[in-house]
Amino acid sequence: MNMVKAGTLLPSRAAPARFVVVRAEAPAQAAHINKTIKKEEAKVVDVCVATAQEQKQVPYCRCWKSSTFPLCDATHAQHNKETGDNVGPLLVKKE
Amino acid sequence: MNMVKAGTLLPSRAAPARFVVVRAEAPAQAAHINKTIKKEEAKVVDVCVATAQEQKQVPYCRCWKSSTFPLCDATHAQHNKETGDNVGPLLVKKE
Ligand code: FES
Ligand code: FES
Repeated sequence: MNMVKAGTLLPSRAAPARFVVVRAEAPAQAAHINKTIKKEEAKVVDVCVATAQEQKQVPYCRCWKSSTFPLCDATHAQHNKETGDNVGPLLVKKE
Repeated sequence: MNMVKAGTLLPSRAAPARFVVVRAEAPAQAAHINKTIKKEEAKVVDVCVATAQEQKQVPYCRCWKSSTFPLCDATHAQHNKETGDNVGPLLVKKE
């Protein structure tokens, strides 16, 4: 029979297995292309009427980061620089 | 003085700290919006001439997953379903 003096650490017979649970950012969230625009809508669709354009050519955003979405404000350049991506706008010409 | 009987597990005074290093997918790569289209180009820009359209309205892709890019082939629906995102095309109308 083992007697244990008060104050002595008890031997841990089998150290309990320790699991470390690590959660990466949810893949689904990480895969969102659109992080901020009209997230309350099920699908963001915009309409452009070309003949109503004042300018002959208007750039439309495809990076989902423009502060003037659906128009392009050149923020794609920052996104490309930060991530190494290569996205750019759609240029809509009247004719 | 503590005597320890052979076969007895020694108390682990201070369990050595254990570090688990976990690397997520490189943030930069994960943040690419465009995974496949013209990756050899520094920036993918497309031009749409509205008056040259046969149809009155043509959907242009903004999810970068269409097999008919720059046109939308509805693949955005699959992307939205898989990720919970809410992206959709730009509809370009002639007038
Ligand atoms: S700001 Fe989004 S494509 Fe230019
Ligand atoms: S397939 Fe990309 S927006 Fe429709």
